[in-house]
Amino acid sequence: MANIFSKARGLFHLFQSIDINQISTLASKIDLGEVMAAVGKLDDNQLNSVVKMLKSGGSHHQKELPAIEGDFYHLGHALTDEERALQLKVRAFMEAEIKPIANEYWLKAEFPFQIIPKLAQLNICGLTYQGYGCPNKTFLMEGILAMEMARVDTSISTFFGVQSGLCMGSIYLCGSEEQKQEWLPQLQQFKAIGAFGLTEPEVGSAAAGGLTTTAKRNGDTWVLNGQKKWIGNATFADVTVIWARDLDDNQVKGFLVRKGNPGFSVEKIQDKMALRIVQNGLITLNNCVVQEADRMQNANSFKDTAKVLQMTRAGVAWQAVGCARGAYESALDYTRKRKQFGKPIASFQLIQNHLVEMLSNLTAMQTLCFRLSQLQDEGKLKDEHASLAKVFCSLRTRDVVSHAREVMGGNGILLEYNVARFVADAEAIYSYEGTKEINSLIVGRAITGFSAFV
Amino acid sequence: MANIFSKARGLFHLFQSIDINQISTLASKIDLGEVMAAVGKLDDNQLNSVVKMLKSGGSHHQKELPAIEGDFYHLGHALTDEERALQLKVRAFMEAEIKPIANEYWLKAEFPFQIIPKLAQLNICGLTYQGYGCPNKTFLMEGILAMEMARVDTSISTFFGVQSGLCMGSIYLCGSEEQKQEWLPQLQQFKAIGAFGLTEPEVGSAAAGGLTTTAKRNGDTWVLNGQKKWIGNATFADVTVIWARDLDDNQVKGFLVRKGNPGFSVEKIQDKMALRIVQNGLITLNNCVVQEADRMQNANSFKDTAKVLQMTRAGVAWQAVGCARGAYESALDYTRKRKQFGKPIASFQLIQNHLVEMLSNLTAMQTLCFRLSQLQDEGKLKDEHASLAKVFCSLRTRDVVSHAREVMGGNGILLEYNVARFVADAEAIYSYEGTKEINSLIVGRAITGFSAFV
Amino acid sequence: MANIFSKARGLFHLFQSIDINQISTLASKIDLGEVMAAVGKLDDNQLNSVVKMLKSGGSHHQKELPAIEGDFYHLGHALTDEERALQLKVRAFMEAEIKPIANEYWLKAEFPFQIIPKLAQLNICGLTYQGYGCPNKTFLMEGILAMEMARVDTSISTFFGVQSGLCMGSIYLCGSEEQKQEWLPQLQQFKAIGAFGLTEPEVGSAAAGGLTTTAKRNGDTWVLNGQKKWIGNATFADVTVIWARDLDDNQVKGFLVRKGNPGFSVEKIQDKMALRIVQNGLITLNNCVVQEADRMQNANSFKDTAKVLQMTRAGVAWQAVGCARGAYESALDYTRKRKQFGKPIASFQLIQNHLVEMLSNLTAMQTLCFRLSQLQDEGKLKDEHASLAKVFCSLRTRDVVSHAREVMGGNGILLEYNVARFVADAEAIYSYEGTKEINSLIVGRAITGFSAFV
Amino acid sequence: MANIFSKARGLFHLFQSIDINQISTLASKIDLGEVMAAVGKLDDNQLNSVVKMLKSGGSHHQKELPAIEGDFYHLGHALTDEERALQLKVRAFMEAEIKPIANEYWLKAEFPFQIIPKLAQLNICGLTYQGYGCPNKTFLMEGILAMEMARVDTSISTFFGVQSGLCMGSIYLCGSEEQKQEWLPQLQQFKAIGAFGLTEPEVGSAAAGGLTTTAKRNGDTWVLNGQKKWIGNATFADVTVIWARDLDDNQVKGFLVRKGNPGFSVEKIQDKMALRIVQNGLITLNNCVVQEADRMQNANSFKDTAKVLQMTRAGVAWQAVGCARGAYESALDYTRKRKQFGKPIASFQLIQNHLVEMLSNLTAMQTLCFRLSQLQDEGKLKDEHASLAKVFCSLRTRDVVSHAREVMGGNGILLEYNVARFVADAEAIYSYEGTKEINSLIVGRAITGFSAFV
Repeated sequence: MANIFSKARGLFHLFQSIDINQISTLASKIDLGEVMAAVGKLDDNQLNSVVKMLKSGGSHHQKELPAIEGDFYHLGHALTDEERALQLKVRAFMEAEIKPIANEYWLKAEFPFQIIPKLAQLNICGLTYQGYGCPNKTFLMEGILAMEMARVDTSISTFFGVQSGLCMGSIYLCGSEEQKQEWLPQLQQFKAIGAFGLTEPEVGSAAAGGLTTTAKRNGDTWVLNGQKKWIGNATFADVTVIWARDLDDNQVKGFLVRKGNPGFSVEKIQDKMALRIVQNGLITLNNCVVQEADRMQNANSFKDTAKVLQMTRAGVAWQAVGCARGAYESALDYTRKRKQFGKPIASFQLIQNHLVEMLSNLTAMQTLCFRLSQLQDEGKLKDEHASLAKVFCSLRTRDVVSHAREVMGGNGILLEYNVARFVADAEAIYSYEGTKEINSLIVGRAITGFSAFV
Repeated sequence: MANIFSKARGLFHLFQSIDINQISTLASKIDLGEVMAAVGKLDDNQLNSVVKMLKSGGSHHQKELPAIEGDFYHLGHALTDEERALQLKVRAFMEAEIKPIANEYWLKAEFPFQIIPKLAQLNICGLTYQGYGCPNKTFLMEGILAMEMARVDTSISTFFGVQSGLCMGSIYLCGSEEQKQEWLPQLQQFKAIGAFGLTEPEVGSAAAGGLTTTAKRNGDTWVLNGQKKWIGNATFADVTVIWARDLDDNQVKGFLVRKGNPGFSVEKIQDKMALRIVQNGLITLNNCVVQEADRMQNANSFKDTAKVLQMTRAGVAWQAVGCARGAYESALDYTRKRKQFGKPIASFQLIQNHLVEMLSNLTAMQTLCFRLSQLQDEGKLKDEHASLAKVFCSLRTRDVVSHAREVMGGNGILLEYNVARFVADAEAIYSYEGTKEINSLIVGRAITGFSAFV
Repeated sequence: MANIFSKARGLFHLFQSIDINQISTLASKIDLGEVMAAVGKLDDNQLNSVVKMLKSGGSHHQKELPAIEGDFYHLGHALTDEERALQLKVRAFMEAEIKPIANEYWLKAEFPFQIIPKLAQLNICGLTYQGYGCPNKTFLMEGILAMEMARVDTSISTFFGVQSGLCMGSIYLCGSEEQKQEWLPQLQQFKAIGAFGLTEPEVGSAAAGGLTTTAKRNGDTWVLNGQKKWIGNATFADVTVIWARDLDDNQVKGFLVRKGNPGFSVEKIQDKMALRIVQNGLITLNNCVVQEADRMQNANSFKDTAKVLQMTRAGVAWQAVGCARGAYESALDYTRKRKQFGKPIASFQLIQNHLVEMLSNLTAMQTLCFRLSQLQDEGKLKDEHASLAKVFCSLRTRDVVSHAREVMGGNGILLEYNVARFVADAEAIYSYEGTKEINSLIVGRAITGFSAFV
Repeated sequence: MANIFSKARGLFHLFQSIDINQISTLASKIDLGEVMAAVGKLDDNQLNSVVKMLKSGGSHHQKELPAIEGDFYHLGHALTDEERALQLKVRAFMEAEIKPIANEYWLKAEFPFQIIPKLAQLNICGLTYQGYGCPNKTFLMEGILAMEMARVDTSISTFFGVQSGLCMGSIYLCGSEEQKQEWLPQLQQFKAIGAFGLTEPEVGSAAAGGLTTTAKRNGDTWVLNGQKKWIGNATFADVTVIWARDLDDNQVKGFLVRKGNPGFSVEKIQDKMALRIVQNGLITLNNCVVQEADRMQNANSFKDTAKVLQMTRAGVAWQAVGCARGAYESALDYTRKRKQFGKPIASFQLIQNHLVEMLSNLTAMQTLCFRLSQLQDEGKLKDEHASLAKVFCSLRTRDVVSHAREVMGGNGILLEYNVARFVADAEAIYSYEGTKEINSLIVGRAITGFSAFV
């Protein structure tokens, strides 16, 4: 009995609810009989799945999608309101001023000098320093901003890191009061541009051990000789910090070498496949004479150089996070728009798998760096903490950008889709401020008690 | 001239400083002439390396090594003093009471019932709940303790999680006031043991969709039929929460089934290769009659079941962290003691590389879960947050234990070295409370806006 | 006009082809009007997808599935007919005699002695040797058979490898004619069982360097002292090859120590988590006196030991292949039967992704080992070739079994599903006959010209 | 007594064998007393290690290093002499003509047209075809040559693959006798250049399903409309094969469109980060009229297109091998020359680990492709075989180039070191002729029996 009512109800339902024109149209496209036969073979679970799918199927294009957000664990909301506002201001600047031109300058391997005044207006240079016109904010804030910059373009964040971290940091930590007074305010406002010359053609990540650039005191002057490679901003910097070994006491000392100094020449490093906006120089010091007054008065050995590196290394980890985040957000956006087999590729399991791999690594990196910066703000940061973050983030970033590029198929190799540049740049992050190997051995020594460098 | 002085000084030095007996001994072991010839060919860098190495070389055994510490970023110090004390109390309990017996019980696949009273004394069960004798602490604290327990034995932490999280949590969130009064205090004190019956033989991680266990109301009683598989603690539990589909309204409801209830039988699941201390049951409900008074009064649909799962899922991520941490600490210890080619294997680059890979993943997991628990304490936790942590941590833990086992060579497969058990247990963590696939698709849906389950 | 005909045709189609009962049934389950509305929103591509899916959907259970075959590139067909027949004979033996009992003995950690006579009947022991009752077949054939055995149980293939490869191989390569005559025929027929004692408690993969077991000649006898660990078959072997350092000339020599020899005792190594069927012994030699006649007459230094290891190492790589293949085939089978959301999990993208990862690694391993054995048959095999295969295959096998276990969800940790055992055993393969580290450094030295062991 | 003699012998040894000048020099550099004290603390094992190291240490520069050879398992020697000679001829051509210019043209994103006549002289185009001036060699030979070309430059091998495989292959398999006579001889001699237009802006790897370019017959002509993207060589090709859907029967057909045909326009795709030497075009067909005589007479449906793709897909796998091999060989060379801490970085464990990872993957790829080509030559190749190789090799190649770049530190991002280009190009290989996802699903369908594309 129930069965008969049910049948009748079904028929009534059917004729009441469906549009006969629609059926005709359908019947002209598919074999309805065959389809009904197939439907008849489904069990209830399968039937429910099909209905669910059909209901969602036709509306892919209308549905309101969740916002694209690379901060999955809401770390931005763990900042103070003022800090959060600064984060968003820098983000807005990067999206308005840098994003539209990044691919073009990257391709040309040129630096967009016109953006410098606008960058200066953000007043974020020398962020953590006290005095000399610097904002005196936290290291956490500095890390967050490094991420924001790298999220749009890793070259620009590198340019900034050289200026604000390596160059100003050297002067801030190792300069005399006079040197700070002279340089920090103008560097902070980008009225002067700085560079940092440590790495040499044959001495990379192992800088501590064997710098070959030499300094020889001669009365009130010093004579510098040697070469420095990979020096960011060097082709146009007003001042370059040069680290050299004093021939007399064998200690590493630092010198502020001014643009145009005789004996100081810079050749642009050509044909990079990564961070092409950054202008790296090969510096040659050929009996370059520098005044004793331009020797950094508080840099007495490599330990002082190392303080600068320790202070800035966390920033490199944050840059890696930004690079990964930029790639992830572009990739997510792409997969929701690109269709295959009639539906957005973001709705395929294999694509979601890539996205979730990216996001889980990205989120882990963010929480790791957040804690790292907290340690730094608490004065507890050790070399090995920063090295671990550098190793983890540069490795995971490589993985993230690789997945990002992968979900884009062939389009992933075109700059215009805003992933290819991150893929390339991740390779540079991977090796600067210490390769994975060197940073791993720093951590390894700290935890095992044994040095395995040699 | 300088050269002659230098030579003279060298000779003087030589004869003054070296013990002729020592040279004789040396000469009986090695060909000194050959060695000197070899030394003569070294350049200065090489010479320095050798000297450094020699100085460190002979003292491997005496050197004071850094403490073995799996909390590299000092998250334990971000707790309050009271919280930190509780963490250390639980750690001490695990090391004193569980560590000495874990391998033995794991091998026998038996549960050490004798530890229950001591566990009860810690007063940490139902940690986050308010009232009913529960301590009302933070979710962060709960997570930290899950890590501490799993760090020594993941089975014990699973036993605890079933009792405190799944069973008590169901009653706390879905029970009536009477049910809470009856059960929570005795469960909190381990005077009663609880279990949680959701998974079925053919319905694993996809529980939401298709529970096949049924409930049929019959006046003041309900008749339950079906099977539940993998139910932890079920073989000896005093009360088991059973989730079943109401045949009348098709909604999932929850029942508190007491030990010995007719129609309720449990068979122990045999021959597991992981979490062997946990007693998992295959429950058969054969016209099992339960009173309406034992139906959880506030469990009206699967959404209520899901609330329990969401609350406890973060704990599983923390367990993964503990499992990884236990393996890492054992492995580090081993590599500092085990020698090969005459020195501790911890001093080899390849071994340090393994250790640093482990530690970086371990540290990332810790910071990720820390933030996850903060979100939970702030009431901002969503399913996808917990799912991401589950995916990331269970994947990374597998990786960590794998490296840990690797640095131990053949000994890595012997239980006594305290890594093999973690290797095996990591496999169980990997799939319980949702496989990687299901959790990935939960995150995928949240970020793309598209469901890709079917 | 065309449109009107089309509509009419549609209606005709509709009423002619569908069963009104079926519609009633459907209408009682789903809201047909809603479904039709949803269908109306699909574009043609989507519509075609749906139809295709529906047609395939209901028939998952009837479809004839492709055979489960782990030899995707048909290497078995590159053998001669006779070789292929032998391969299939061994496979049949393993499936009939070993598969039904493997999990049980593995769990008990016991060896199934009853299978030895049947194993002997296969006449495959000492396969590559000439004379002494040995079949004199190719190394390729031997590798293929190692794979076939490990495909069902890696412990049995290890037992066989110790007997046929390590023990008989030592005698074949280093024994005198008398020693060969005495031992090889009875070992070939499993009338005697052999073992091979090289590894020591503190000297693992680095055996070449520092054997601590000593031999001291005393007239016509030798006195052996020391310990050997991990020695497969040692608990019941009739003869054990013991490698020891001659106190007089510091060279490594080999001795055939008979069962029951005074001063020779064996303790079974307990609580392994892998290869539990293999009985590994800890041998203690306490002033163990052996006749000069039982010293292997052609073993004069570690170079001779190394010849044995080189000859057998390819077999370990093939065992890894077998282990991976067994896991893959079980996993594939499972995924085609296990259903979720109403369809076999093998039909989900994420599961296919796992399966293809497994199969691609499995196929690469097979082609690699095939070529390795060809080199061996051509007399071109060098240590570094075998080491590379060992590194690649043991690494990839770990990966394969891990994916296999993963597609099985929770059931992956139960022995009965025939993957868990392979997961555990892969860990033993990973470290025996040289860890990944040692084998990598052997290859590294060969290609760079630099030794990096110390 | 023995002790006294030993001491005396030691002293004698010492004074006899060492050069007092050398000691003086040493003493001026290091503190000999301290060093001797340190040496005294070493145990015998350590002492031996030190001596060994010293002896090898000073002679890094003189030692004769093993040849750099990416064919570790000697597959080149499994060829016939004639085949081997051809392999070496092509290698010599690539090294002499292409290597010196590859980076320059890659950077400019231009094609070096001047090399075409020399390439033609090799007489390897259309290698496997019979007649029409083609050499009629094996598919194995063709694969080996694809590897040789990609080993020096993947762009050139892609240019060649489009000409010889995709374009000539289409005509060879689907053209009429007249079409073959007209085109194959001149294409074989590079007197005409060909292209192959299948992929569309919105239809990538899923080409089978939904080509949107249309063909409409109109008497003796056809009108083509639509767009083709990524078409290699299209900007300068004399003939482009265009695949389009016939509006009348809905089948895919192929057309030979000549350069300059009205309605046929090509725009160069700009700003690629990979395969920059390859000129990819975006083709627009705007009422492009083609003669029926230029329709490929034996291309009747997409199945015929698929035959072309199946024939050429193995070649893409071989290209991946070549790309990996080129990167590996450059990296190995670099690590043996680059020094750190005074010795070649190739002598560090961490670097050897990278090298061995590369070489094991490279060797596995080679043996896999070798077998794949054998299957093709035996007529047993199926789509899924080629897809598996494509998946495996493109994935492993990405891994190899990534390690190669890694061992080079910062220099890895400079084109001049001959790894950066391979890193970038590997990304293109990764997605062309089917992404990893599509090829995985092809294999997945073959082994599971279920299609999971949609």
